[in-house]
Amino acid sequence: MNSPITLKEFQQEHGELITNHMVKNVERLSMPPVLKEAMVYSLQAGGKRIRPILLLAAIETFNQDPMLGLNTAAALEMIHTYSLIHDDLPSMDDDDLRRGKPTNHKMFGEAAAILAGDGLLTYSFQLIAEDPALTSDKKVKLIALLARCAGPEGMVGGQVADIEGEMKQLTANELENIHVHKTGKLLTFSVIAGGIISGASDNELELLERFAFHIGLAFQIQDDILDIEGSEEMIGKPVGSDESKHKSTYPSLLTMKGAKEKLQFHLDEALMSIDELPVDSSLLTEIAQLIVSRNH
Amino acid sequence: MNSPITLKEFQQEHGELITNHMVKNVERLSMPPVLKEAMVYSLQAGGKRIRPILLLAAIETFNQDPMLGLNTAAALEMIHTYSLIHDDLPSMDDDDLRRGKPTNHKMFGEAAAILAGDGLLTYSFQLIAEDPALTSDKKVKLIALLARCAGPEGMVGGQVADIEGEMKQLTANELENIHVHKTGKLLTFSVIAGGIISGASDNELELLERFAFHIGLAFQIQDDILDIEGSEEMIGKPVGSDESKHKSTYPSLLTMKGAKEKLQFHLDEALMSIDELPVDSSLLTEIAQLIVSRNH
Repeated sequence: MNSPITLKEFQQEHGELITNHMVKNVERLSMPPVLKEAMVYSLQAGGKRIRPILLLAAIETFNQDPMLGLNTAAALEMIHTYSLIHDDLPSMDDDDLRRGKPTNHKMFGEAAAILAGDGLLTYSFQLIAEDPALTSDKKVKLIALLARCAGPEGMVGGQVADIEGEMKQLTANELENIHVHKTGKLLTFSVIAGGIISGASDNELELLERFAFHIGLAFQIQDDILDIEGSEEMIGKPVGSDESKHKSTYPSLLTMKGAKEKLQFHLDEALMSIDELPVDSSLLTEIAQLIVSRNH
Repeated sequence: MNSPITLKEFQQEHGELITNHMVKNVERLSMPPVLKEAMVYSLQAGGKRIRPILLLAAIETFNQDPMLGLNTAAALEMIHTYSLIHDDLPSMDDDDLRRGKPTNHKMFGEAAAILAGDGLLTYSFQLIAEDPALTSDKKVKLIALLARCAGPEGMVGGQVADIEGEMKQLTANELENIHVHKTGKLLTFSVIAGGIISGASDNELELLERFAFHIGLAFQIQDDILDIEGSEEMIGKPVGSDESKHKSTYPSLLTMKGAKEKLQFHLDEALMSIDELPVDSSLLTEIAQLIVSRNH
């Protein structure tokens, strides 16, 4: 028996493919050049591609061809990209830089940035609906789930809750609720979509959903931890400086020790869920472990 | 034989139904209250509901139950509504009022307005994907077409072209190209969607598309004419004042006489197209005639 593919091999093989697939599909559309430039700019601005990689890895886990999920993975990453463009706008986080490059509205102006986001969001549903590799039944399931995870009951609702919660002291439950919606729902979509495309059973989809819920929270807790420990190493920002900005984080609400315990809890729960799958889940296990051990 | 339903009866019966259906569906979603309030505010802000009425009228024309199209009609009007919210933003048209009421961002702030628009756009695809009355094949066709008509190749692209064209002298072809995308594509969707839901043949869908193309342009030309003739009656603004603002319009490019001739041309073409349909098209004829005779 061949040893299963490692995450590193899997990421190398698929990360660039996803970027190329997104760009190629936008390039072939007929639209005003400035809109295309703005859309492609943010699609090429880098990123870990964690969501589409998770989606393709879930398909690989079920011994199906990951390429069956390429359009859905690209659509998902386009929605993530649109959300970053809109989040960076002056009326939201007002960020000038993302990953060291000027944000979309800094490059193209606010109107074009809003419309590039609208264009990516709209086109993502078209990409799934026009996928020649999937049945209509699967496409409808994927579109309904993606809209639920990305829309008012998911990511968009989470972004509103995040803005509302910014200047007040949150409870740990309120903070978790924001993360579950703002970032967790799209991560959940990644994994469940892989299952839907692979023809997973309802029971298997439930296990995938539980896995995704817990790695979503682990991902966010690790983010909060890195905000503190990463900065301390690099620029000597003291632990707890986020607290003085009234921004609620897991370490500020639970102490650093409490946050690390919670991180371990969610990792354990995630791994237990996929251990129950009747397939080799080593690739998903590796992704989960990478999420908690990453240092950026 | 019963006489066919008149447009007035049809609008009375269905206009309020569409508003109620949109609001009811958003109300039942679980999301932060301010987001729901912002979404519902714009859905209830009035409007002629011309797109969903056209969609339902196309179904009626094929002797099918218009209620089969209620979710798609609501989704379409939600997309129209999101586009108005984003168009009104300070970085776009910077409008404080729409239909005599404060615009969304004036009521809820820019961030909430952007996110209310994102939420309506995303949810509209969910509403079609979850429609229990349609087959998966029809839902996939509707979603792909709606995304094409609303996205970068359609309305979003038209909005970018409109912003770019605002301060320069356009040719009549450039002006038409903007309107075909900015407003025409969603009107086209209205009519073709009604055909898809009714199970119309490819040839019938082509006739519907030609009808929609021409009434879309007629609608826009009449808008430009009303901007001048409506204002003259009401506030005595001289004909051609738009020209001095460098905004290209049909009367400014073609003279008022030329614009009215073009309007009549597109009405005639629209009516010829649906005359070829093997069904009683009197309801669609009435809508086309209403578009050119309306005075607001």
